[in-house]
Formats: sequence, C-alpha cells, structure tokens
Amino acid sequence: MEKKDLFLGADTGGTMVKFVVTDREGNVFHDGEIATDPTSIRTTMQKLAGAAEELLGGPGYPRLAAMGMACAGIVNAATGRLGRSPNLPGWEDSDLAGDIAAVFPGVPVALANDVNGALFGEFRTGAGRGCRNLVMIALGTGVGGGVIVEGELVVGTHCGAGEIGHMVLDPEGPRCTCGGKGCLEAWAGSQGLLRRAREATTRSGSSGALSGLIAERGANLTSFDLAGLAGQGDPAAVALFAEAGRRLGQAVGNIVNLLDPDRVIIGGGVAQAGDLILGPCREVVPTLVLAAEARNVPVVEAELGPLAAAVGAACLARDLEQAG
Amino acid sequence: MEKKDLFLGADTGGTMVKFVVTDREGNVFHDGEIATDPTSIRTTMQKLAGAAEELLGGPGYPRLAAMGMACAGIVNAATGRLGRSPNLPGWEDSDLAGDIAAVFPGVPVALANDVNGALFGEFRTGAGRGCRNLVMIALGTGVGGGVIVEGELVVGTHCGAGEIGHMVLDPEGPRCTCGGKGCLEAWAGSQGLLRRAREATTRSGSSGALSGLIAERGANLTSFDLAGLAGQGDPAAVALFAEAGRRLGQAVGNIVNLLDPDRVIIGGGVAQAGDLILGPCREVVPTLVLAAEARNVPVVEAELGPLAAAVGAACLARDLEQAG
Repeated sequence: MEKKDLFLGADTGGTMVKFVVTDREGNVFHDGEIATDPTSIRTTMQKLAGAAEELLGGPGYPRLAAMGMACAGIVNAATGRLGRSPNLPGWEDSDLAGDIAAVFPGVPVALANDVNGALFGEFRTGAGRGCRNLVMIALGTGVGGGVIVEGELVVGTHCGAGEIGHMVLDPEGPRCTCGGKGCLEAWAGSQGLLRRAREATTRSGSSGALSGLIAERGANLTSFDLAGLAGQGDPAAVALFAEAGRRLGQAVGNIVNLLDPDRVIIGGGVAQAGDLILGPCREVVPTLVLAAEARNVPVVEAELGPLAAAVGAACLARDLEQAG
Repeated sequence: MEKKDLFLGADTGGTMVKFVVTDREGNVFHDGEIATDPTSIRTTMQKLAGAAEELLGGPGYPRLAAMGMACAGIVNAATGRLGRSPNLPGWEDSDLAGDIAAVFPGVPVALANDVNGALFGEFRTGAGRGCRNLVMIALGTGVGGGVIVEGELVVGTHCGAGEIGHMVLDPEGPRCTCGGKGCLEAWAGSQGLLRRAREATTRSGSSGALSGLIAERGANLTSFDLAGLAGQGDPAAVALFAEAGRRLGQAVGNIVNLLDPDRVIIGGGVAQAGDLILGPCREVVPTLVLAAEARNVPVVEAELGPLAAAVGAACLARDLEQAG
C-alpha cells in the first residue's frame, strides 16, 4: 500500500475550480483547473476527481491524505454546509462536505470560504509567512477580506467575518452595490473604480486620455486598462488610483487600530496596480494608527496570485490531517 | 494551612485603584479602592496589599490563589511590562509584573489593559456571558474598546489592539484629540460630545435650553448634564446623542462586518444615556451589515459598571491559576 503523502486543494468559483496537489510541506507540484458545474456539486467533484486521480496514485486516490475546499460564499467549516453564495446560486444551502465525501469517501475534508483560503495560503507559504496576526484585503470586482488572530482564521459566529469591503468610510460617499454608501468597495473594487472613472469623465467633459480610453473600450473597460493609463502618467487615471489608495489606507488604519496585526496583505486584480494604489495607502496608514508600535505595519502585495486559495485549502487539509 | 481559594482583581487608573476579592466562581464578596501613587507602582501595591490583607487570610495572604491587574496603558501580558500610559506617566516603561511580585511574592499575576479587563469581566460575569465572540466599546472621556475571538482576548502583535475610538468614520469629520479627523471618539466620547454641544450652540446663537445649560455649567459641563437635558426632550440635546449614536452604529456595523461577533457591549459614562444613544445606533447597524445572519447582532449596555475591569482581572487570575 502506498503512503498517504499528498494533499489536494481546490478553489471553487462561479466558473472554474482551480486545484493544486501538494506535499506535506505545502510544495505545489501540480496545478490545474476544471469547469464548475453550476448546478451540481457532485458532478463538479467527479470532474475534479477525474482530473486529479492519476496524480493521487490512481483509482481510490491511495496517496491522498486529505483535501481542502475553498468555496465562494458563506462556508461553515463546523457543519460542513455552504450557505448563501451569490456566484454559485445552484450550490447554495447545501451539504458541501457531504457531497464531497460522496466522491472522495473516507478522505478528511477541510472547508473555508475563498478569501479565507487565499489568506491561509499567503499565511503559510506567501506574503504572510511568519506572522501570528494577519489581515488580507482582496481588491477584485468586489472587495473581500480575512483575518488571522494568533494563527487561527477568524470566521465569526455566523461565518460572516471578513466583509472588509463593506466598511463604511463615509456615510455620504459613493453608492455601493450592497445598497449602502461610502463602502471601501465603492472606491477600491474594480467595479467601483470603473464607475468612478466614468463619472469623472462625465463631470469633466469628454476631453483627455481617460475619456478616450473609456470611449474606445466601452463596456470592455477593465481596471487593468485604467492601471495601464495611470502607469503612463495620465493625471486623471493616477488620481483615481490615488483616491482608491487613500480610502484603502483609511480602512487599513481602522483595522490596524482594532487588531494590531503583524502585516496587511493586499491582493486581487486591482492590487496589480502596485504603487499607484499602495503608495497612497501606505502614506495614509501611519497617520491614522494610534499605537506607536503598530504604526509602521507593513502593507504588502499578495505573492501567490490566482492559486492562493487552492494552496491555502491544501494547507488547511494538511493541518486537519495532522490534528486528526 | 488554609486553602488558597481567593482571587484579587485590581483596576489601576490615574487616581484610584479599584479592587475586588472573588471566589473561584467569580463571586465578588468584597470591593474597595485605594489612591494610586502616581510615582510608584510598589508603594501603590503595598497600599493595596494592606487594604486586602485581612480579607486574604492575614499576613502572607495565605488564601490568595492568584491576582490580576488591569492597568491603563499598553500592557504586555507576555513580558509583564507596562509601556505607554498617558494617565500614569510615572508608571510608564516599567516592569509592572516584577513590581507586583516584589509585594506579592510567589503569587501568580495576570495582566491586562483596563478596557480588556472590563471586557473580560463582562464576558465572564456580565453582559457577555455565554458568548464566544464579543466586542466592547467604552464611551468615556475618550473611547476605548476590546475584542474577544473564540473566547480569547485579542491583544495584537504590539499589544495595540482595541483602539476602536480612533476608527475614522469620515476623514472630513470633526477634529479628534489624537490629531486626526472624524474618529468615533470625536462624536461619541464625552469630550467630543461636549465640544459638539458647544459648537452647536455657537452656530445657532445663544437661545434655547442647551445654550442655557452650557452657560450655567460652564467648564463643569458633563455628558451627564447633556443626557439629563436630552432626557427632558430638548431637541438640540437629543440631536447630539442621536448623531453620536448613528456614528457609533457606523463603527459597530464596520466591526460586525469584519468580525461577526455574538454581541456588542457598549459601556462607559456616555452609554448611561441609554436609548438616547443606543436607539439610533441600533437603527443604523442592520443597514450596514452584509451577512444576513450577522445583521441582528445584539447591541447591549454593559452590566458591571465601574468594577468591571477589577472583576475581569480576578477572572483572568482564576484562569491563570487553573492553567498553571
């Protein structure tokens, strides 16, 4: 009988499941992806099993020690259930752990939501290595986040922790997709940033490079387009990222005052704008933090990229197997 | 030899040390206070020892199982040191645990800052009984706070966690004593509230009951005076507490989105205004919280009053003794 020495980590989003196979030390020696079946967890798991089978020693996965699943939505690791999940409506209110176990019988399964998965991956093998207390803010279409206190993921009483994107930074600020006003997400999520860009050009008339880009790209405009223009020094585009960065800095300062972490990691697509957004953020943070010792908390870019949550899920699987 | 069955809990502020003696179940059967010696921890501890000696079985305190000290300032429970402490400048940067041990030799000592002491007291014997995840906001002259995650006080990497009063709720808001703008404290601490009251009457001219109260009380005006006037229905005074309550609600909503606690406790002198401030706060919170399950988090008044931190220190002492 072969040794159970491998871990499968998966990250399920609305369209794709990214997965990694790691050894006990968290080294990734294979990664891949399959399409999510938005109507069936079991079908998706069967496809995942098929894609990973040979890597895990063939039928029955004799080398698979444990697996981890990071999933978009409200994931309750204690009950094994998936609650509300806007990107996976066909998976909502389901026995996620049970459906996984039906395909991977006898394999211990660790669960987390996707942002906590990414945070845990960075914590163990990325930008958060060596930390005890860690915060991550993921600037995607929306803005998510996660918190680690004394080495443990903070999930909250109803598995609702980490909604950093809806920290209200000014109750009279711009409208957010959540229905509120002045949430971090309205400035620093890509959707908010694009809206601010279109509003800025409407206000200032239609001249300038930013207006030209918006007209050219139309509905295909992305935050990467904006970052490209800002990288060329266009003042209007630079100002958009600076505004987002200062608001991100306000949120980070508030969180550091509350939790005093070792480090704050900024991930997600918008963070790829780098110093355009992180520079203004890093300027604001020390002006807001009260405790002198906590004031110079490093605000760093995520390191693991799109595989972070799958890697984190594999690390959670390893911990589960070692505790069990 | 008598049994070591008693715990001493103390709460040191700039002028007084409040103390309690409890049994193993946390029942308080004596409380008292002594004056703080602002220049010497040892002298203060000697006075405390003298005041508690007979209660603890006489010389050598044969019934004292462990003691706890909650102290204003940055308290490092791991190293035993007191760092910055604006209300106790003569105690700053000292070996707090060592100076206590010199007066209470051989007695295990638990340390916490004063707000965390109060939070822990409420957690064990007050408004937070039965919770796993808990947040407290103390509305005093300034605004402090504390967080419990999965039953443990969150102290942060530099013992700087819990500075909830300096959460920036609007970067263009009123000036705060910290030098920043728009901190929660500038609206909901008593000092901020008094300043807002004086500014409101300056803006609106000198007519009305609020102006009369301010003129009559002068420099002796307190938040209790304002609450009294608001309790009589004076619109200007009611509006001040409502504004403070809405800002408190914004802060609570932000924290619930981040940490998803079981409950949020509001303590401190300003909280004694009751529904004048908690009513508007409770209206705002559910409008800001994203996770449906977390939306109706109870926002409750503290129960233990001024002895909370001393009781919490005694509870921490009990835990220390049981773990040791």
